[in-house]
Amino acid sequence: MKNIRVASTPTIKRLPAYLHIIEAAAREGKEYISGTVIAEELELEPIQVRKDLATTGIVGKPRLGFPVAELVQAINGFLDWNTVHNAIILGAGHLGTALMGYRIFPRHGMHIVAAFDSDTGKIGTKINGVPVYALPELKERVRKLQVELAILTVPSSHAQQVADLLVDCGIQSIWNFTNIKIKVPPGVIVQKEDLSSGYAVLSVKMRLARDAAPEE
Amino acid sequence: MKNIRVASTPTIKRLPAYLHIIEAAAREGKEYISGTVIAEELELEPIQVRKDLATTGIVGKPRLGFPVAELVQAINGFLDWNTVHNAIILGAGHLGTALMGYRIFPRHGMHIVAAFDSDTGKIGTKINGVPVYALPELKERVRKLQVELAILTVPSSHAQQVADLLVDCGIQSIWNFTNIKIKVPPGVIVQKEDLSSGYAVLSVKMRLARDAAPEE
Repeated sequence: MKNIRVASTPTIKRLPAYLHIIEAAAREGKEYISGTVIAEELELEPIQVRKDLATTGIVGKPRLGFPVAELVQAINGFLDWNTVHNAIILGAGHLGTALMGYRIFPRHGMHIVAAFDSDTGKIGTKINGVPVYALPELKERVRKLQVELAILTVPSSHAQQVADLLVDCGIQSIWNFTNIKIKVPPGVIVQKEDLSSGYAVLSVKMRLARDAAPEE
Repeated sequence: MKNIRVASTPTIKRLPAYLHIIEAAAREGKEYISGTVIAEELELEPIQVRKDLATTGIVGKPRLGFPVAELVQAINGFLDWNTVHNAIILGAGHLGTALMGYRIFPRHGMHIVAAFDSDTGKIGTKINGVPVYALPELKERVRKLQVELAILTVPSSHAQQVADLLVDCGIQSIWNFTNIKIKVPPGVIVQKEDLSSGYAVLSVKMRLARDAAPEE
């Protein structure tokens, strides 16, 4: 494996978008893809793309660009998306259900193997092929299913309580979609998803566009 | 209003998290908040916090920190979250329904005033208080409701077709939750939301933790 360097969070966040473009190039049978083409597609600066991709250990060749197959392999290796990661969903509401139907996750190694909910109308059913269990079954299922990752989509008022349960079951990584900053012991990884961030970027673009528009 | 500088996308994405913390301090009656306290809460470097907040035009005072009321006002002004922005949802499926119930949006000025779907079982009903209309009503409703923003949560196979409709109705800003990179005329703002980005960050953290762990 190539030498993998430490990457900044913004760089890591851009890697999936690069991967989608480079995989499309691979499907079209292309051997090389230029950083400039990727940059144009994503409206980024070419130097940014080259710097980001360098973190995966792959450097482009002058005039040819980046080797497509190697780059797909390197990005997937960097993100650890070549191996299967079993995940569970806590809270089979609308957001949880939407995530269970999100087709891109299995392509990136994430397999949602079970969901947990307190709604007796959902327990025992399957949603998008994923079985829904009662919370008291959590510990046994986590052990049996070799779960690496828990996705938290419960109502915010239950977030900490369910997070405590997850930690108690030995879960080491939590993807938190609630509005609550959950407290976990040292060593447990929490990634908080905040839709307000995307809305903030959109809001600033809208304000700048409005300010730039001629007065009516 | 203070001088507002251009901010990078990562800076803008961090502003909502700052705002949530500073609003909590305001509710507790605090007059000042230190950059170090904000940094610790969000696991960022204090210098990063101070640089980010400087883009809103507010500078902290030595020993006191940032003035809470002024900073809330400045961030909301920077993000244009003090004014109401009417939004519509295209696709009242699970993700669309989850977003209609997302309580943080109205606090940030976004009011979802209507949803559109092709499912006759949903048309004419209300979801989380939001009326659901048929797509052929789009143009008239957009005009009447003074819609600024459309949130795209249709199946990816319909994304471009519905985006074309939105542009045709004069919508200038689209928040795209589909997997498709939609094509729009110059001047139309598109913000693509990609959950793979958060998953990528989480995946790298999981890989680094595993690599650092002692062999079993």
